[in-house]
Amino acid sequence: MELFFANGVLIDQNTGTGNAHKCISINDRALQYGDGVFETLRIVNGDIPMWGYHQQRLKNAQNILGLPLNNFFSQWNEFIATNLSRVESGCAKLIISRGEGPRGYKIPQPAQLNWWLSITELPDIATKEKFRLTLCRHTLSRQPTLAGLKHLNRLDQVMARSEWSEQDNIEEGIMFNLDGDVIEGTMSNIFWLKGDQLFTPDLSQEGVDGCVRRWVIAQQGHSSPVIIEKCAKLDQLLTADAVFLTNSLIGIQKVTEIDSQVITQSTKIETLATEFNRQFIHG
Amino acid sequence: MELFFANGVLIDQNTGTGNAHKCISINDRALQYGDGVFETLRIVNGDIPMWGYHQQRLKNAQNILGLPLNNFFSQWNEFIATNLSRVESGCAKLIISRGEGPRGYKIPQPAQLNWWLSITELPDIATKEKFRLTLCRHTLSRQPTLAGLKHLNRLDQVMARSEWSEQDNIEEGIMFNLDGDVIEGTMSNIFWLKGDQLFTPDLSQEGVDGCVRRWVIAQQGHSSPVIIEKCAKLDQLLTADAVFLTNSLIGIQKVTEIDSQVITQSTKIETLATEFNRQFIHG
Repeated sequence: MELFFANGVLIDQNTGTGNAHKCISINDRALQYGDGVFETLRIVNGDIPMWGYHQQRLKNAQNILGLPLNNFFSQWNEFIATNLSRVESGCAKLIISRGEGPRGYKIPQPAQLNWWLSITELPDIATKEKFRLTLCRHTLSRQPTLAGLKHLNRLDQVMARSEWSEQDNIEEGIMFNLDGDVIEGTMSNIFWLKGDQLFTPDLSQEGVDGCVRRWVIAQQGHSSPVIIEKCAKLDQLLTADAVFLTNSLIGIQKVTEIDSQVITQSTKIETLATEFNRQFIHG
Repeated sequence: MELFFANGVLIDQNTGTGNAHKCISINDRALQYGDGVFETLRIVNGDIPMWGYHQQRLKNAQNILGLPLNNFFSQWNEFIATNLSRVESGCAKLIISRGEGPRGYKIPQPAQLNWWLSITELPDIATKEKFRLTLCRHTLSRQPTLAGLKHLNRLDQVMARSEWSEQDNIEEGIMFNLDGDVIEGTMSNIFWLKGDQLFTPDLSQEGVDGCVRRWVIAQQGHSSPVIIEKCAKLDQLLTADAVFLTNSLIGIQKVTEIDSQVITQSTKIETLATEFNRQFIHG
């Protein structure tokens, strides 16, 4: 199963119907400057249960980057109801670009957004018994203004992800900031448990504020311990009672090794993961 | 005159011949992640006189980003000789992408680069008598590893360029780093003269190392005063004997106003501009 939509129109990849829409222009600002944002969505029974969290991040992009997303938002629910109802399970990548423009950084007024949705099979994300992290040498750019957004300027992640390959038995890499603080994985956020408190890095200077991350933070006092967002060095993770990663595809994934050191486990993480799955996957 | 080449093949925009090549894939990593670089080239009498400087920056990208550019370099001279010989004057934008890949940041092995060249009329770059700079509030991301490269992650420039519009009588904006140091213009490098010395910002932490900038630095002791690359605050520019900008289209452009304050002028800048034009424009 592979589906591709351009600005809401299904492009039939066999007959070529609508190929004109599949053709992305050299003048598109996503290609020229990375001028846009993306979201990785998990489809469950024809719906996107976490959409509220994705939409909140897109609204942040609307405010900070000035992307005019109101028309997009007003069409989205009907688009999903019409087109995804028969997709039982899948992974969708949504890219929203500022659209085409003439030469130069200046934003065309009015901008005419382009958006694309690619739907593919859910990758193999069964909870893994062994989940091993490496330490990335490539550090994150510091940019407080854009911190938290999932924009299309992602060379940092490309560089970090190139530091290990399949043979290394590594599932994810930890990225640090310029001060050597732990910030996130290349495609996930990170949490650690110490006593009765959960910690996650402060993302005010760099990093992507993930949807599952915000859900975990919103749980505090309910199914999750109190959460503290703070700067931390690697030793705090290595001496934690448990470490886990989050993203919209894996949900909550416990970490078993960091840089070949064994990480202790806690049943509190399983309780949180069960609650997440109940709300968003098997609800 | 508008010409467009995809991977070295001319795409006829009237007949549609070769349209398949003009169709940029949704899976292209330039679109997905900004995983690539670009160059803005000035064409003079069918040639690109500054190509050596552009090539040097591309070689830096080859080393730092791991872009496999050897095949591209080996084809380039013949491509130019075959296709640009009748272009008397123009502006070319070269984009080189890591190419298509499956979902995920991981770099496909081997990567199959895509490159596109768009040739348009030279914009109006006659040396302007009034050249006024504004001060951009949006600061540059800090990223020492990628500093100097002209990669496709350019949201900082998009944000900064959106701070003024045509009615403001502004020609360019000065961008600062997170410490408040002057770094560059949104599409140019910056120099200032004080006594017998020329200064330009240190670009080791952020910024784009322009071709004309490197030419100016290489002139020291010949037609240019001694150059110092350093961190500097705005007041050093406002109290300078002269300020000028550089890029491959405008060459060397004196600045007349910064944030509505008049900047003094020096004939030393004109001497340097004359030498630049002799070597690269009217040579």
